Amino acid sequence: MSIDGVKALTFDVFGTVVNWRDSVAREAEAILAPLGVQEDWHAFADAWRARYQPAMQKVRDGTMPWNKLDDLHRMNLEDLLAEKGIGGLDEATLDHLNKAWHRLDPWPDTIEGLTRLRRKYVLATLSNGNVALMVNMAKRAGLPWDAILGAEVARAYKPQPEAYLRAADFLGLKPEECMMTAAHNNDLVAASKVGFRTAFVLRPVEYGPNQAKDTRAEHDFDVIADDFVDLAQKLGC
Amino acid sequence: MSIDGVKALTFDVFGTVVNWRDSVAREAEAILAPLGVQEDWHAFADAWRARYQPAMQKVRDGTMPWNKLDDLHRMNLEDLLAEKGIGGLDEATLDHLNKAWHRLDPWPDTIEGLTRLRRKYVLATLSNGNVALMVNMAKRAGLPWDAILGAEVARAYKPQPEAYLRAADFLGLKPEECMMTAAHNNDLVAASKVGFRTAFVLRPVEYGPNQAKDTRAEHDFDVIADDFVDLAQKLGC
Repeated sequence: MSIDGVKALTFDVFGTVVNWRDSVAREAEAILAPLGVQEDWHAFADAWRARYQPAMQKVRDGTMPWNKLDDLHRMNLEDLLAEKGIGGLDEATLDHLNKAWHRLDPWPDTIEGLTRLRRKYVLATLSNGNVALMVNMAKRAGLPWDAILGAEVARAYKPQPEAYLRAADFLGLKPEECMMTAAHNNDLVAASKVGFRTAFVLRPVEYGPNQAKDTRAEHDFDVIADDFVDLAQKLGC
Repeated sequence: MSIDGVKALTFDVFGTVVNWRDSVAREAEAILAPLGVQEDWHAFADAWRARYQPAMQKVRDGTMPWNKLDDLHRMNLEDLLAEKGIGGLDEATLDHLNKAWHRLDPWPDTIEGLTRLRRKYVLATLSNGNVALMVNMAKRAGLPWDAILGAEVARAYKPQPEAYLRAADFLGLKPEECMMTAAHNNDLVAASKVGFRTAFVLRPVEYGPNQAKDTRAEHDFDVIADDFVDLAQKLGC
């Protein structure tokens, strides 16, 4: 398959590139269990993640001023801990736990797929994660990005159109020269509306074994792939 | 040598990481000589570069609205070509020539030095070059950056303090956790004023064999190195 004129692939990261659910569950257990906290750690990760979209929505609609994702994660964490009656954590522990999101593992196909794709395309993050989060994650996991872009440099959270358009502008490319790559239908639909090409990558257990959404491509995206190795194959890399 | 607490090295790029003078001379000759233009190509590169600081100064002092460096380079190129009476270039040729700045070669020690430094530190560009320029240059030359930062994402041209402070903020670091690395005394002095650590790397022929400035470190910087391999050595990488 050839997608004429595409020069850069821009990537959703949480869920698409990395497995946040298992990683956050592991990190939370490693930090909190020794302190005597007993939880279903995957449910803990899900509950933290459930506060993600509502927090960004406050920024999108102007109810809250701009806050980078590390800071939204921290507000959501404190809210979650209070709800669960987990108290007495010192600042260093809270900060380390909050930065669990910097220590997410890639899916098994991620590194091979990105490495192959990078031979032909510019690879840039286009995530709602902030720059430091993306840099630290990439350094730990060995993700071979050419550029860290996304919400913080665009000052807009996806699916706001500015998030995509400013990424293309930073890359010096037209929207149609960029292909948004994501495991989420709504992200690709929003990118497509501003002229990006689209690649859907299936991540059927991002939300665990009973995942209810994004279990298939629901629109006519330019490429539909089973994983990043399949995507590389389909793009001739 | 150990610089306690430094987590990221931020890099000046033009002159420090890459040899702009020989590269621009080569690119200009390759594009213009076949069209019958005769020039001293190093003088051509010097004359183009001489317009760099004055153009940024107009942005810094508000005489000109924000323009990314690709656009300042283009204005300066058109000015230079007019002055030299070189006309009749089509848009594709002008654009390709303007993007000579995306095709600069690293100094011989750059790749080895950066590769060693990257094992221990986050490496980020903190250049006045725009994101696309830095991404394309890195892709072509194999520069192993962890992040592309600098003027365009900070919306401020060095040596304005915001250029440095916003880079540290994007990295989630305090200024003293960042070490500005440059071949230019004024860049390091400005970084130092906002709390950055400083590393001077000698590039004695950046401006050619008769270079008059930046031929030595003129201040008490944290590290002074002969090149990037020496810098890696001095930082224990």
